[in-house]
Amino acid sequence: MANLSCVDALINCFTKLPGVGYKTAERYAYRVIEMSREDAGHFSSAIMAVKDQVKFCQVCGNFATGEKCEICEKRHSDTVCVVAHPKDIAVIERCHAYNGTYHVLHGVLSPLNKKGPDQLNLKSLMTRLQGGAIKEVIIALSADVEGEATANYLAALIKPSGIKVSRLATGIAMGVALEYADEMTIGMALRNRTEVL
Amino acid sequence: MANLSCVDALINCFTKLPGVGYKTAERYAYRVIEMSREDAGHFSSAIMAVKDQVKFCQVCGNFATGEKCEICEKRHSDTVCVVAHPKDIAVIERCHAYNGTYHVLHGVLSPLNKKGPDQLNLKSLMTRLQGGAIKEVIIALSADVEGEATANYLAALIKPSGIKVSRLATGIAMGVALEYADEMTIGMALRNRTEVL
Repeated sequence: MANLSCVDALINCFTKLPGVGYKTAERYAYRVIEMSREDAGHFSSAIMAVKDQVKFCQVCGNFATGEKCEICEKRHSDTVCVVAHPKDIAVIERCHAYNGTYHVLHGVLSPLNKKGPDQLNLKSLMTRLQGGAIKEVIIALSADVEGEATANYLAALIKPSGIKVSRLATGIAMGVALEYADEMTIGMALRNRTEVL
Repeated sequence: MANLSCVDALINCFTKLPGVGYKTAERYAYRVIEMSREDAGHFSSAIMAVKDQVKFCQVCGNFATGEKCEICEKRHSDTVCVVAHPKDIAVIERCHAYNGTYHVLHGVLSPLNKKGPDQLNLKSLMTRLQGGAIKEVIIALSADVEGEATANYLAALIKPSGIKVSRLATGIAMGVALEYADEMTIGMALRNRTEVL
């Protein structure tokens, strides 16, 4: 008797979002009840619009509304940045420091989650590289165990074809005090030290 | 170019939920993209179902699918518990310690938010009390300044009609160490001390 069944159904839907428990989902559902009919209509149709319209780019695996994503349509570059998920592209784009194309693996090597090389979007990457137009592959994966393993695998796969393979620098994050940086990070930052010119 | 426009539209909808900023909304939107079509369909229609089906009980102001809410339909009690929002009813129901009816004010007195007595669901409460069937009103509002002010206003309004008015006890919360309780709470707990029998 605590909640109406239609409210319970909506709470249940919200709990499927990442990091949302029952109490948070309940707060979200109550906010939907308070919304105007128009706002709720927008919300409801925005969910289906995303499901209907979002496909994957046949070149790089990014989200796309057509066959190719906006970036593959517009940019022609000899550099490909390899990321794990489409959301990582949005992160890199926001820093306005990269103007090349991307390739989305849709995951990283992870034996525990049954993700081997065949489960990653690797074939289309190798096809792109065989074209000969690409001079450098930048590996932009998370700096954790699975990311490191995937980066090493990729480097071993690509290097024989003579293409330059690079990785995002590991080091102390901007604004972080040295005393709070962990030992692994300081070790990497020392090894990868840059000359002051 | 960071996100597709339909994804941006969904992110924008999610930011309207309480406590959800851009980054969280983005995570939610990506999860919707990963959902099965069926789950997304459930989600989308659950939002509209809530807007279509949830009305307010004409007796107590709680959420209802018909003219009366489930509680007003089933329970006949001489005790009314006054709460600020329908969600507070769910909170009280979950403790299984109350079996009476409710009355929802839809807010508390708050001059800053332009909420005076006329903006609260008070008229229907006074009509209910004039019926003579109600012997006690339990005020269950938050223990903050606005809740206290509203409780005092209600008590002054109801007491002349001879109906008993009570409030939720103020004191130290269960499981809280004395050293972490604030002075106001300890003061109230001392004043409202209960005899050990």
